[in-house]
Amino acid sequence: MVLNLLNPKFTLLLAAFITLFTNNVKAQDPYQSYRQDWLKKAEENKPKLVETEKQPISMVKLEKDPTAFQGWKAVNTDSVGAFYSKSFKTQSGVVADFGEHLTGYFTFTIQSLKGTPDAPVRLKFTFGEVPSELTVPFDPYPGTISRAWLQDETVTVTEMPATITIPRRLACRYVKIELLGASPYFDFHITNMEFKATTSVMAKPPLLAQGTSQLIADIDRIGLTTLKECMQTVYEDGPKRDRRLWIGDLYLESLANLYSYQNNNLTKRCFYLLAGLSADDGVLISNVFETPEPHAQVGNRLLDYCFLYNVALKEYVAATDDKQTGLDLWPVAKKQLDMIRKYAGKDGMMDYIKAGKEWWVFFDWKDGLDKQASLQGLSIYTLNQTYALAKILGKENEVSDIPALARKLKNAAYTNLYDKKSGLFVSGVKKQISYGSQAWMVLSGVASKTEGQTALKALPSIKDAVHPGAPYMFHYYVAALIESGLKAEAKEALQTYWGGMIKKGADTFWEVYDPNDELKSPYNFYPVNSYCHAWSCTPVYFIRKYPEIFQR
Amino acid sequence: MVLNLLNPKFTLLLAAFITLFTNNVKAQDPYQSYRQDWLKKAEENKPKLVETEKQPISMVKLEKDPTAFQGWKAVNTDSVGAFYSKSFKTQSGVVADFGEHLTGYFTFTIQSLKGTPDAPVRLKFTFGEVPSELTVPFDPYPGTISRAWLQDETVTVTEMPATITIPRRLACRYVKIELLGASPYFDFHITNMEFKATTSVMAKPPLLAQGTSQLIADIDRIGLTTLKECMQTVYEDGPKRDRRLWIGDLYLESLANLYSYQNNNLTKRCFYLLAGLSADDGVLISNVFETPEPHAQVGNRLLDYCFLYNVALKEYVAATDDKQTGLDLWPVAKKQLDMIRKYAGKDGMMDYIKAGKEWWVFFDWKDGLDKQASLQGLSIYTLNQTYALAKILGKENEVSDIPALARKLKNAAYTNLYDKKSGLFVSGVKKQISYGSQAWMVLSGVASKTEGQTALKALPSIKDAVHPGAPYMFHYYVAALIESGLKAEAKEALQTYWGGMIKKGADTFWEVYDPNDELKSPYNFYPVNSYCHAWSCTPVYFIRKYPEIFQR
Repeated sequence: MVLNLLNPKFTLLLAAFITLFTNNVKAQDPYQSYRQDWLKKAEENKPKLVETEKQPISMVKLEKDPTAFQGWKAVNTDSVGAFYSKSFKTQSGVVADFGEHLTGYFTFTIQSLKGTPDAPVRLKFTFGEVPSELTVPFDPYPGTISRAWLQDETVTVTEMPATITIPRRLACRYVKIELLGASPYFDFHITNMEFKATTSVMAKPPLLAQGTSQLIADIDRIGLTTLKECMQTVYEDGPKRDRRLWIGDLYLESLANLYSYQNNNLTKRCFYLLAGLSADDGVLISNVFETPEPHAQVGNRLLDYCFLYNVALKEYVAATDDKQTGLDLWPVAKKQLDMIRKYAGKDGMMDYIKAGKEWWVFFDWKDGLDKQASLQGLSIYTLNQTYALAKILGKENEVSDIPALARKLKNAAYTNLYDKKSGLFVSGVKKQISYGSQAWMVLSGVASKTEGQTALKALPSIKDAVHPGAPYMFHYYVAALIESGLKAEAKEALQTYWGGMIKKGADTFWEVYDPNDELKSPYNFYPVNSYCHAWSCTPVYFIRKYPEIFQR
Repeated sequence: MVLNLLNPKFTLLLAAFITLFTNNVKAQDPYQSYRQDWLKKAEENKPKLVETEKQPISMVKLEKDPTAFQGWKAVNTDSVGAFYSKSFKTQSGVVADFGEHLTGYFTFTIQSLKGTPDAPVRLKFTFGEVPSELTVPFDPYPGTISRAWLQDETVTVTEMPATITIPRRLACRYVKIELLGASPYFDFHITNMEFKATTSVMAKPPLLAQGTSQLIADIDRIGLTTLKECMQTVYEDGPKRDRRLWIGDLYLESLANLYSYQNNNLTKRCFYLLAGLSADDGVLISNVFETPEPHAQVGNRLLDYCFLYNVALKEYVAATDDKQTGLDLWPVAKKQLDMIRKYAGKDGMMDYIKAGKEWWVFFDWKDGLDKQASLQGLSIYTLNQTYALAKILGKENEVSDIPALARKLKNAAYTNLYDKKSGLFVSGVKKQISYGSQAWMVLSGVASKTEGQTALKALPSIKDAVHPGAPYMFHYYVAALIESGLKAEAKEALQTYWGGMIKKGADTFWEVYDPNDELKSPYNFYPVNSYCHAWSCTPVYFIRKYPEIFQR
């Protein structure tokens, strides 16, 4: 007997088997059938970069000055034309100042001045966002992340005239040029230095209200520049470093973008890209790369960033009414909630110790920060924001357990973390008091408005309170001040912190800023810090979302 | 009245004026009307480069060894496959050995082994023709010529997998790779190292006679490699340095080529290129460049090289019967004789002091060499060779003064430079005795055969005799031995000198070789010497032109 493949009964059996098999595979990768579509939508929304040609505005020298940021300042020396007209041999070590932070590609021309070029010329270019990158020796390198992030490139010019573009994309304001080798038998000059600056920002944001203070206008302007520089074909965290899409940066950039450039397709692209590159178990990966092919940093699971994806998506859908994107990505948002369900104990407290062992729990670049309260607060916040998203999308029935879970976590937080006596929220076994903990207890609604005010107002007088380590955490602190109705304090905090960077000469806002330690670095070497960092751009969001606080 | 431009009389006047004007310009540049044609012929004869893909044969380490050339030897450590299979992080400083000298472009692939590449990688590549280039620190650089000749390149790899080609053309056997920066969060390996080797040599030279000794066969083989590596789109002096056409190198390369690869179009191209790029006064420039546009090293006037152009042209025309090229370039050869006429005194002696002030008079890389006798000899030789060329071309009537002038110089040389007592030729006010002086007195015919034999045989026993500094001068010494009929001595000298380099591990013959000073450098830093140098390839010429001396 021969098996009759056309027998209707057999066909039915085969179909059932295939369905079963497919379902099994799906169980391993919840998004398998969507991924390709999501990556396609990410690609469709990839912006075209705007290219602008920029020339240096002056030649400068770097001078030691204990009052300058990190001890160095740039002082004008010569016009660019004067530099071009003279032999480069007499000017090794010169620094060109482009007058603003730029991201893109550096080109120069090198030409003979006297004699026939009879040998190659060896040049070293160092690109700095801030003066310290041009003054502090890079080697021996003490940093904990790749030395190759530092932007120094050696170029051998084998013939001239030549117009040479450094292949690597760069982020800088200053360019130092040093002569490492030349022939004594001819002379040459460098001319036509040019930066092909790129960004995906095309729109001009609305003007601030008349009467806005100069300081707030400056903070807004620098914040806009920071955001613009980071808006390339994704929201990058920093155009110098890490040059890629991180969820935490995306969240803050997309907020600032909503109130400024309104390049919402870029936000959309980033949501789809992250979804398309999530792990097989449905968990989002904290950061992704666009080239050579879109791919994620496999294994980089950052718990708070998974949650913030939901928050960012809700803000985007609510602001743009782009329900289609919300619906497409709803399975992803829903999936991230599993981690809250997993770590939420019977007592309603998140098991932050277990989570901390199994995940990278970040919240801030701050050694010693206890993250119990922050994680509890963010979990509650995420539950509520995700439920709000479900309501917009008509999906409440799929997450009907959420409101009760959020309440449970909130009550447990109040019971376990609020110290009624001091009026402050504590975190961890040592009952640590930090800005972060208060901020997240306020934002999650664990603290009532009055309790929030009391806690936030008390902070400055608490000697051991753990301060924010980076502008990223400072954002949540300012958001909490506003949420608590502490308008004047919010404005003051924003002006002091971001205004402090401006007073120290910032052209863009820095990845890390501790007013009391300018050399602070999460990587053990401050020149490798990013000095144009996405998560520091949020004054743009605050100033523009709350004109009644900041623009009067 | 309006000027009638069509008036025949006026037209005639205008034509006369134009002719006058053009003639005036022509008087300043004797070749004006030919240059374009010469450069066109140079371009027409530009060879297509043959590209061959080469892989390394082994990984090696460099070990100190006082008995090795310059104190360093390469010792096999690992297979290339083993290197490829392991993390590069554990292998920084490794050296790949291509097993032979190569000229061209280096490519490698870099790929992740574990984890997602999250940061750039910084690599340093150092390319060495000999081990010392990989072992002696380059900085601080003590050399007198450009530091940029040294072949170390730093590369920032911003994403991977990537296949990267170093833009600069390189010349090496060994490639050292060092890790200057990487992220601790991923691992990677380097694979697929490849050299796209270029040469314009396509032909295989004839086999040597059966029974040729192993040493002579080895010298011939290394000489052929040296010549092949230098034969690119011109006869280069050295593929590492200076990478261009010099007349002195062209002369010796074209001789070796005549007896081996017979790529005579390349020789032709070089003659036309030099003629097309000669100075406005008709004098040849010692060296020329092909890119970005063909051009000469303006001002580099090297008297002996002007003369050797004539000698080389005569050898080429005589050997190939390409009279057309000879006739085209006859005006150039004729013009170079002017410098002999200018410096020849009434007494028949070349005014070498005046010439030395007005020109670079080279002859050898040898400090302290007195050049009177060499210049006198070369001048006579040039007169005779140019007259021989004139005879081939039927142009004797244009240089009818030459035979008498040559005789006058020869007689004067004999009278003034020959020390009958010692049987040696002397040079300069201090009556210096050198190998160079004897060689040129023999080659010019000032010495009779017997006198030449006596002088050359006496040399080794003269304590203060100035020895050749470079293989370039050694060529003329061996040529003189042959010319004097000292066959055994010629063979012995060639075997000792070039064979000495082979004993010390030469893959190609070196620019400079003093058997007693391996660190000798005309540039105060031996790693910048060229270790594959055209002018050192001439054993190929001797061995193949005189089989009765060398191939038995």
